[in-house]
This record gives sequence, structure tokens and C-alpha cells, in this order.
Amino acid sequence: MDILFAHNEKKGEKFTEKLKGKNPGFICVIGNTETAKIPGISVAGANPEITDFTPAADCELLYFGECKCIPGVPITPDGIPTPGLITMSALNLVDLSKLVVIGGVRVYPQIPYVEVGGSPGGDIRTGKAVKNVKEVITRSTLLGENLAKYCKNLNYLVIGESIAGGTTTTLGVLSAMGIEGKGKVSSSMPINPHKLKEEIIELGMKSANLEFGSYKNDPIKAIECLGDPMIPACAGLVLGAGKKIPILLAGGTQMTSILAVVNSIDPKVLNNLAIGTTRWIVEDKQSDIKGIVDQIGQIPILAVNLDFNKLKAEGLKAYERDIAKEGVGAGGTCIAALLKNENINTEVLLVEIEKNYDLLMKKK
Amino acid sequence: MDILFAHNEKKGEKFTEKLKGKNPGFICVIGNTETAKIPGISVAGANPEITDFTPAADCELLYFGECKCIPGVPITPDGIPTPGLITMSALNLVDLSKLVVIGGVRVYPQIPYVEVGGSPGGDIRTGKAVKNVKEVITRSTLLGENLAKYCKNLNYLVIGESIAGGTTTTLGVLSAMGIEGKGKVSSSMPINPHKLKEEIIELGMKSANLEFGSYKNDPIKAIECLGDPMIPACAGLVLGAGKKIPILLAGGTQMTSILAVVNSIDPKVLNNLAIGTTRWIVEDKQSDIKGIVDQIGQIPILAVNLDFNKLKAEGLKAYERDIAKEGVGAGGTCIAALLKNENINTEVLLVEIEKNYDLLMKKK
Repeated sequence: MDILFAHNEKKGEKFTEKLKGKNPGFICVIGNTETAKIPGISVAGANPEITDFTPAADCELLYFGECKCIPGVPITPDGIPTPGLITMSALNLVDLSKLVVIGGVRVYPQIPYVEVGGSPGGDIRTGKAVKNVKEVITRSTLLGENLAKYCKNLNYLVIGESIAGGTTTTLGVLSAMGIEGKGKVSSSMPINPHKLKEEIIELGMKSANLEFGSYKNDPIKAIECLGDPMIPACAGLVLGAGKKIPILLAGGTQMTSILAVVNSIDPKVLNNLAIGTTRWIVEDKQSDIKGIVDQIGQIPILAVNLDFNKLKAEGLKAYERDIAKEGVGAGGTCIAALLKNENINTEVLLVEIEKNYDLLMKKK
Repeated sequence: MDILFAHNEKKGEKFTEKLKGKNPGFICVIGNTETAKIPGISVAGANPEITDFTPAADCELLYFGECKCIPGVPITPDGIPTPGLITMSALNLVDLSKLVVIGGVRVYPQIPYVEVGGSPGGDIRTGKAVKNVKEVITRSTLLGENLAKYCKNLNYLVIGESIAGGTTTTLGVLSAMGIEGKGKVSSSMPINPHKLKEEIIELGMKSANLEFGSYKNDPIKAIECLGDPMIPACAGLVLGAGKKIPILLAGGTQMTSILAVVNSIDPKVLNNLAIGTTRWIVEDKQSDIKGIVDQIGQIPILAVNLDFNKLKAEGLKAYERDIAKEGVGAGGTCIAALLKNENINTEVLLVEIEKNYDLLMKKK
């Protein structure tokens, strides 16, 4: 089975039926935060300071097959390569279009990108996480509406993200909105630092003078206090496009903050969404994406059934030891590739991924 | 006749046949230059300094039906409204998608927009007009490729511009590339200041130490010395998308600089292009778009046959007295609207334009 129907299976099957053979556009929303630099919170970069470069480098990888703003490709401190490598392989196999949207970054990618009025995020321990949230949602909603119009009846969008520390800010937004995320958000690390994340959220809530659920009906405030700049840009896109076309939210537990925000602003849009992720997320014992989704709505979760144990490359085998897991829309773009062309299966994806891994490691 | 086949008629007819019923995307490329502020060069704003606001305001008009960065709408010193009003009417009638690409501006619109690495243009009398031209072309080519992929076999792009002083910088690029534009570029003013434009170009050529045709085969240098930031961004889009899908270049004589640049970099792409403009351009006695196009290639020129003499509003009737004429893709978007829906004719367009004019004048 190439695609696992991991949750709300029947709806998931119906959702994928609609998308078969279609030619979606891939959007990657990127952001930087100071939260990501708290020691122990993210391995989306060889060290905390370099996490600012990771999203830009990920996007450059998708465009050029190599990064421009850093040498090599984004890696964990242990040298495990970015899941952007999986995304790049999936996009190349079926020649999908791509567009990068800036949530708010310190480091810009050297590619065309869309601005929607955002700026980089702060440290959520201060309770002041993101500025200009309402305006960003407004502008990215307009972008989503226009992208949907561009090809109304024929397409769907796959929307992924690259932002370090994103599961912590997701826990922040969920908590502010009264959705239980403790122990449930995932991590790019083999040992999920749940306790550290909870301490950070507690500090942030204290600073912002709020409690669990204080902003149940105010997603904008929730993001402003405890979120990250990817969230409003991504939520706006979903709100704008999801009224017209289906959307595959390509990411792990981070995408549940998008679901929560969208549900609060325009719940009908949820009917047009599914989460598309990796097997490493849905089988992860240290997180619980289904447990979060169930608090929001009956949204299908699809997972690409990639088995990196079959590969030779040690850097990729590490994905089977709970490292990295998801990011840059890796799972969702693989699902889009599988749905677009029936000659593509997970074996084809594995070959392409290992080929690109070898090419990139040689360049290094 | 709603669409005039003004030049290379047979090719123009074939071109429109392909586009009938299609659902194009509209792109508006915007820029600011110091050249536009030379007294007597542009009326795209109530005074020279305010020309920096005009492109941003034009784009906001398309998104919101009103401007955000200025009160009212862009007008000439005599109070004649921007052709963006025509564009807005055409886009609304057929619900076309829109995307704004920043060539290089001082004033950003309060909408989503795409950056391709550009910056505002200088005064071409210095011979240093635009920075980073090659990088902008590279990035906007990538954007064009991705937009074309988004809906490969079904669509086309309509690409317009909003930049004050753009016919002067077009004359600059044409001259540097050895294409005769003297006395042939158009103007938003009733009396075309040909002599002033030629003096400006001469100063610029002297400053850059070049002669007519010095950069015949080097469009990048030609833009760097005498162009404007709209040109590389627009040319890149055409180069990237025009390999895959048809493109209607929505503008007057300014679009001939795009043709010249594209012809020099990838001449095959010209086969996939037409110019779409207004009757006021093709019938203008003070300019000669056909005479410029003929020096580059057999590119069809289409013109929307709008007759503003039929309208009551004095601000619109002025268009029949050689004011404004074209801009913000006015002519091309009207042609796209006519081609998309056979129930739309120029009478329908006129009604919509006058309705929007009245609404906007009331707001003022």
C-alpha cells in the first residue's frame, strides 16, 4: 500500500479519488523564529543559530537541486539530511509547479517568492510571538483565492512548510485555543523534548497573561502570543483557496495549528482538507496527530508509506530511527506524485530519493 | 468588431482562436524609477513625486476596488483616472486571477506580491538604470516556468505593467539594442514629449559611454544602463512561461522592450506571443508600435475596440483625446475577457467601466 489511510479512512479515500491524475501546485510556506533557537528545541540545522537558514536553503534545494544560501544541504547536528530531499524528489518525478510564500524570515531564499506582509517571529517565552497576524491572513487569503481561480476546476493545492521549532509554536497555539497538544506534538528529534516544550509554553502563557483556552475563539491573538509566522500565512492560503479547491496540508502535527485556526475562522473549509504526511509521523509513538485532529474535526490523515530500511544510505536509514520524520511538505508531495501518475509507486520514489541523496552527498 | 487585428493579422487571428474560452492568469509587473520624476516625462500621477505610488495604488485597485496607499485612485494632473480602472472592470467581469510581481519599487502595495530580486530604478541620464538584472531575469524565469506548469495545457498568461516613465526607458533599451524607437514610443500625455525623451536617452548613452546599437546582443547591459526594473522581471516571466503556454503581452509600446530582450535571449519564444493593447495605442498618430515591432519579429498586435466617446463621464471621454491610452494591462485584460466569455462584448465592458468609474468618483 503506497498511501496509508491513517485516520478518517473513508473520507480519506474519497478525498484521494477526487485528486487522481490531477496536476496540483505545491506551495511551501516558510518562517523563522527566535523560539527555534532555544537550545534543545530543534534539529532543523546543524546548530540552533543556523536554523534561520534552513527554510531558505530548503526552498533553494527545490528550485536548483542545491542550496545557495548555505554550502551543502540542511542537516541535523548528526548529519541527517533535510526531508526537503524527499520533496525535491517527488516534485521532480511528476514535474509539479512550486511557489514559496514567506511567512516571515530573516534569511530570504534566492528564488522568486511571495510576500504577504509578515515578519520573523519572536521567542514565545515572551508571549509576543508574531506581528501583523490579521493583515497576513488577509493578504494570504487573497493569494489563496487567486491561486484557486487560476485553474478552478482542475487542480488542488499541496501546502507544506519549513520552519524550525514549529511543533513548539503549534503547541502554543493549540494551548491558547484550548486544544490539548501536550505530549501529542511531534519532533524532528529521536527523543521528543515534550517537557522542554511545555515549560516554554508555560512561560509564554504567563508572559502573555493567558491560560489554556483563553483564546478559544480568537486565533489571531493565539498566534500573536504563542505562534509562528508560518501559521497565519498558511492559514490564509487555506482559507482563500479551500473555499474553491481541495487542499492537501503537507506536514505533520504542525498542520494541526492550521486546522485549529481555519476551524475558528471558516469551519466549512475543513471539508475540503486532508493532512498528507509520512508514515514516520502517523506511526510515531512519541506523538499523537490523530489525538489532536479529533479535537478539531473529521479531517482525513493520509501518509506516504516510504520504507527507508530498504535503502543503503545511512543518512536516509536514520529516518527509520525517528529522526527528521517530516518537513518541506515531504509526505504530501509524495502523495501528490503517487496520485498524479499511476506508474509511480513508493519503489519509484525510493529510487529517486536515493539517487538525489547520492548526488547531493557527492557535491558536498 | 470587438478586437481589432491591428498587425500581423493572420497570426493574430490564429493566436486568439487558441485562447477562446480559456481561463488565463493576469500578472501585473510593477516598478518605480527616478527617470519617471524628470519633469514633463510622465502624467502617471498628479505630480512627479507621486508617480512612486501609482503602481502600488493600481494593484490595490485591482484587489480591493479602491486604493490603500493613496486616497482616491491614481489620476493625471488633469484628474483623468488610471487605466487600471479598465483593467479592474475586465478582471471582475470574468473573475480572472491576478498576481503582482515586483520589478523594483519604493512603495509596496498592501496585497500579496512576488519578489524576484529587483530594486527600484535610477535616473537613466546617469547611464546606471537598473541593478541585478541577470538575477532578476533568472528568478522571474523560474516563476514563469512554474506558473506555466501550474496548468500546462489549459491556460495562457496576460502580462501587464504599471511603471511611470516606461516609454522613455523603453526608448533607452531599444536604442542601446539598435532598434529605432525615436518618435515611435507612445506617451500617456496628449502631446508626446519625443524631444525630451531623446535628450534623456542621449545623456544616458553619453554617461554609459555607448552608442545606438552598442548592446545589440547584450540585453542585460542595455537594461542595466538605460532600462527600468519592470523590464527584466517581465522578460523573465515571458522567457519562463512562453516556452510552454501562450502569452498576451498587455501593454503599449513599452512591451516592445520586452520583445527585444526576449528575442535576444530565446527568439523561439516570440512565436508564442502577441501584444494585446487598446485602440488608442494602435491608432495613435504620435507613436508607431507597428514600426517598432517590425524591427523585431512578426508578432501580432491585437487591440480592444473600446469607444469612450459613447460614455457620459468626462474623465473617461478624455481617453479619446489621447490621454493615458494604456497601462496596468488595460487592453490585454479586456481582450482576455472578450475571449473568455462570448457573452461579453465591448458594450458590456463599457457599462462595467462606467459603473466602476462612478463608484470610485463617489468614494473620492
